[in-house]
Amino acid sequence: MMFNEDFDGRGDPTMFEPYWKKMGDKGTMVISGSQWMSYVSDFTNICFFMEPEFEGAVRRLHRTVGNAVVDGRHIVVGTGSTQLYQAALYALTSPGGAEPISVVSAAPYYSSYPDETDYLRSGLYRWAGDAYAFDKKGHGDYIEVVNTPNNPDGTNRKAVVKHRPDDQVQGKLIHDLAYYWPQYTAITAPLDEDIMYFTFSKSTGHAGSRIGWAIVKDKEIAKKMAKFVELSTLGVSKVSQHRAAKLMEVICDGYQNCKAKNCELFFEHCQNLMAQRWERLREVVERSEIFSLPKYPKEYCLFSGEFNEPHPAFAWLKCKEDIDLEKFIRGCIKVQGRTGRKFGSDQKYLRLSMLSKDEVFDQFLERLSTIKAISNGY
Amino acid sequence: MMFNEDFDGRGDPTMFEPYWKKMGDKGTMVISGSQWMSYVSDFTNICFFMEPEFEGAVRRLHRTVGNAVVDGRHIVVGTGSTQLYQAALYALTSPGGAEPISVVSAAPYYSSYPDETDYLRSGLYRWAGDAYAFDKKGHGDYIEVVNTPNNPDGTNRKAVVKHRPDDQVQGKLIHDLAYYWPQYTAITAPLDEDIMYFTFSKSTGHAGSRIGWAIVKDKEIAKKMAKFVELSTLGVSKVSQHRAAKLMEVICDGYQNCKAKNCELFFEHCQNLMAQRWERLREVVERSEIFSLPKYPKEYCLFSGEFNEPHPAFAWLKCKEDIDLEKFIRGCIKVQGRTGRKFGSDQKYLRLSMLSKDEVFDQFLERLSTIKAISNGY
Repeated sequence: MMFNEDFDGRGDPTMFEPYWKKMGDKGTMVISGSQWMSYVSDFTNICFFMEPEFEGAVRRLHRTVGNAVVDGRHIVVGTGSTQLYQAALYALTSPGGAEPISVVSAAPYYSSYPDETDYLRSGLYRWAGDAYAFDKKGHGDYIEVVNTPNNPDGTNRKAVVKHRPDDQVQGKLIHDLAYYWPQYTAITAPLDEDIMYFTFSKSTGHAGSRIGWAIVKDKEIAKKMAKFVELSTLGVSKVSQHRAAKLMEVICDGYQNCKAKNCELFFEHCQNLMAQRWERLREVVERSEIFSLPKYPKEYCLFSGEFNEPHPAFAWLKCKEDIDLEKFIRGCIKVQGRTGRKFGSDQKYLRLSMLSKDEVFDQFLERLSTIKAISNGY
Repeated sequence: MMFNEDFDGRGDPTMFEPYWKKMGDKGTMVISGSQWMSYVSDFTNICFFMEPEFEGAVRRLHRTVGNAVVDGRHIVVGTGSTQLYQAALYALTSPGGAEPISVVSAAPYYSSYPDETDYLRSGLYRWAGDAYAFDKKGHGDYIEVVNTPNNPDGTNRKAVVKHRPDDQVQGKLIHDLAYYWPQYTAITAPLDEDIMYFTFSKSTGHAGSRIGWAIVKDKEIAKKMAKFVELSTLGVSKVSQHRAAKLMEVICDGYQNCKAKNCELFFEHCQNLMAQRWERLREVVERSEIFSLPKYPKEYCLFSGEFNEPHPAFAWLKCKEDIDLEKFIRGCIKVQGRTGRKFGSDQKYLRLSMLSKDEVFDQFLERLSTIKAISNGY
């Protein structure tokens, strides 16, 4: 049996399930057989397939958390952030160029970016790897994906491609903010980038609903992103949109009504869970003498009004010796992580999910604590 | 105000809503806040994100209707048939060819095929137009999409690209069976093609749920289609899958329990509605003297046990004079159809949706009946 398995390492956020169980009826919705049958939500919206209730809930959630500017910005709903990443690439490129536009991200970068960029061999864009390496080449136009906090290593990121004064380079940015929520990191400012996207999967834990949303400054870019979603899937499940709206409202109602009443509020609850898991993991890793984890500085969180240490959704485990850590960990304790090589990094790094179910996480820690040394020929 | 508008002509199937209203609680489902949170449904399935209840309901529905062979076949769930069309193209092509594989379909073909094939300028495949024209060119490999009954003209289709004896041509087929249901046409046989796909939108009318499914013979092709859905949207909304399963079960339960009891069964009910609309439309068109509609032969329907005339989801209206019929109809009676040109056909054809709401359809007929002649300079 494999533990901490998260289908090829994607970080199934099942740890949030008990919270929603505890919420009971508050999160329950009833759908009649005749509801939401049409393709169309609102023809006057840039995104004709977006339910107004969904858009309203997204704006309210960001105002509650303070992690992104939504006033005067366009919202585009997508079938998860996977689709919105591709919609952004489509919106930022045009047919007819001499060659596809390069897409880069600073290593270690999210391991799915390369495949999601290249699987259709698009003539519009192509994956060009590590943004730090790209910096030196003096290419033409490019797109840089900034994932902050970053998957896999949990660091805060800014764009890294540098421009020389004589460059004609036109860089465009996409901000993947899947993990910019209080349970993972300090909310240091409401971000206000050209294209930012978020996902229901990592904010509330509802990965199976396949809902994401982009916040976009430019109207024409938002229109092109909506066009992509139309061509790709002819819209986004309305049932899922309403479910996302409902659960976002439950969270926001909590902050509006219960703050003084000692209720169990979503982000505080999840922040505590993450802090406990990280504390336990750090203890085990410190005892090991062969592994290490990144250290994250405390930052002032505008949401909680406290200095908080980040607790990323993934542990970016480093081995002190240059071994194939994925193979070693799998062989030793039958835990499946994802090798650093897939993130444009090194085999001595391993990404492990911090969002698994309690019993899986407990087993993982117990097994990890049994590793005392690296045997020869591991 | 525009009537019979269906967002760029896509045929929003809102006419089925009253049936589901009448079904009341039978179609209602209750979802708790903690259900279906994971990305994963079943790791042992080719399609790890497909809910077993959905797969079961799909197989039961096809056994009930008898329109497709499902025994020994693989099911792949998609975010509507739009995504499954693209998944099939991906599954039938491989990177590394000298040039993209040609994708063809017999004109008049579904007007979205060209855009859905070409929007990403894929190096794997490209739209090559009318399959009849392709026949003569002696190209290399190709993919032919067979849409039967066909959108826009309601005809029954078979593959049309002919092979000469000396050809090295390797043709692959995709069967788009969105309209192969008893309300639209006679079910003459359970089809058993290599790749067939269907959609929740046109079978039960729930377009807003974005659910489709493919029935696939070859395991490796099914795996590649599932891989496409993973790369494109990381799976398919589980809420939508359960809703589709629920409503398919309601339909099948009807046939299992109520056949003798004079219940209002789904397909019979919808077949009657379609027959009434077509009869009314044909009356108006026959009185007009300037328009005509295709005639469809009666065929024996294995599902109903009767000889039935097809009642397609779209009217493929032809004008006896060579005018821009879209422009004429819009100008004359403010009804928006889609010009034949977009289907690889002629400007004197116009596609009109037969699936609009009752009041919209009534208005459309009333207005159409006012056109007596084509004025000069229309």
